Amino acid sequence: MESQSEIRVRYAESDQMGVAYHANYLVWCEVGRTDLIRKLGMTYAEMERRGVMLAVADAKLRYHASARYDDVVRIVTRLTGVRSRMVTFEYDLRRVDDRGPDPARLASASTTLVSIDREGRPTAIPPEMREMLARAVTPGFDA
Amino acid sequence: MESQSEIRVRYAESDQMGVAYHANYLVWCEVGRTDLIRKLGMTYAEMERRGVMLAVADAKLRYHASARYDDVVRIVTRLTGVRSRMVTFEYDLRRVDDRGPDPARLASASTTLVSIDREGRPTAIPPEMREMLARAVTPGFDA
Amino acid sequence: MESQSEIRVRYAESDQMGVAYHANYLVWCEVGRTDLIRKLGMTYAEMERRGVMLAVADAKLRYHASARYDDVVRIVTRLTGVRSRMVTFEYDLRRVDDRGPDPARLASASTTLVSIDREGRPTAIPPEMREMLARAVTPGFDA
Amino acid sequence: MESQSEIRVRYAESDQMGVAYHANYLVWCEVGRTDLIRKLGMTYAEMERRGVMLAVADAKLRYHASARYDDVVRIVTRLTGVRSRMVTFEYDLRRVDDRGPDPARLASASTTLVSIDREGRPTAIPPEMREMLARAVTPGFDA
Repeated sequence: MESQSEIRVRYAESDQMGVAYHANYLVWCEVGRTDLIRKLGMTYAEMERRGVMLAVADAKLRYHASARYDDVVRIVTRLTGVRSRMVTFEYDLRRVDDRGPDPARLASASTTLVSIDREGRPTAIPPEMREMLARAVTPGFDA
Repeated sequence: MESQSEIRVRYAESDQMGVAYHANYLVWCEVGRTDLIRKLGMTYAEMERRGVMLAVADAKLRYHASARYDDVVRIVTRLTGVRSRMVTFEYDLRRVDDRGPDPARLASASTTLVSIDREGRPTAIPPEMREMLARAVTPGFDA
Repeated sequence: MESQSEIRVRYAESDQMGVAYHANYLVWCEVGRTDLIRKLGMTYAEMERRGVMLAVADAKLRYHASARYDDVVRIVTRLTGVRSRMVTFEYDLRRVDDRGPDPARLASASTTLVSIDREGRPTAIPPEMREMLARAVTPGFDA
Repeated sequence: MESQSEIRVRYAESDQMGVAYHANYLVWCEVGRTDLIRKLGMTYAEMERRGVMLAVADAKLRYHASARYDDVVRIVTRLTGVRSRMVTFEYDLRRVDDRGPDPARLASASTTLVSIDREGRPTAIPPEMREMLARAVTPGFDA
């Protein structure tokens, strides 16, 4: 499964190079992840209330082009792997504009998250949640 | 009492105008507040572990000049008022540089914080903490 | 004139108190401001390309209730004053939820911005831009 | 060559999991990078004024343990590679505390930056700058 999110680059996110500061892409990936989980029929906020937290253990980002203030960025998120305590997501970020059907690729990213409990200890994803995630697993963008 | 903190402006904090984005000044004020509380002999982290949270209820900022990437900013923080559930801080932010004894004033600010419990309900500051804060009360910068 | 914007609170914007960190409200006000200017028929990005920058000179915020991760926040923005070099905006921020027609007020804010040129010097707002802004002036929320 | 930087985790950087939000580590790496370049005898701010910008093209992060509000984090930065248009840095982030000589490893990271001109086009690093960087090249942390 994949989900699509759109954000508009905020002035706060620009830097003095005139582009969106690179760390913000991780925040946008998190927006994509939140939307994908919502599309699965739950919310990450609710997962946390039930005591399941997903902490980022690994992140990889490749920046292809710059997003600028006021650009609309489309984040396509895919859930590409689930294991007992881990979930992997991949992201494809593109600038959405009026110039054509094939928006410029801004960045590609992947993150691996580990399931932890309220004390921060690694813990198995509850079975029914894991099954729901497993049904949504999709090949990644490069696959 | 007053305390002094110094931060160096991060690239992440710059915006496309080439200056530090205005919302960061509130973050720097919080750095000043944390340092002032530490100077009083406790830490805000410890206050929270004891169940006393200080939530910002009111903030006022005046921007006089721009901080830029890599500038060192000195934050002078004063505790200017304590009531049963409220604490007021004032801040004077200046650029520290090599050019002289009187650094340029960047901004002045004040924040009022309300004491809340873990459920977010307003609650009295514990007496011994309130006394410690009360002893540190100082006239504000304009007084 | 007033404009409406909606943002969803990001995990990145939460803090360890479990609520949206207070400095983010200034970022959300900026989102509201950007949208109001767009509704006027121009964009702030375009204003900057023409050499007119609006720098925040003064900000006031009152926090009434807490926004939380994944909440949808509606920002109503009004342009309440225009002078030769200054523009004032007011903001009303409310939580949007399913529980009723009158969303909880989260915060109210106002900011005054000064028109500056590329070198950071105060400069008059160009006449045609000032007229367009002047036609949009509206009484503030408390008026 | 390597440089050491220290930052104290800000409340603004915490999230509702009670730990420093993962995207902030990229900001701390940038603090480390700025300090390493300063130690080389120039400043990145000055490099930009001369028209050489370093844009992040690739970032990898592994998170080992969580930093928390008010923790002091030590960032050790190494310049591990220089090519005509690219520079690679590695980072080792540890929590500094009173409990012993071997601080807990929080994260390890690497970033590759591309030299661009004011228009955002890839451009060779000026020879004298490249030589200075080349003399500082050091094996990475895993080497």
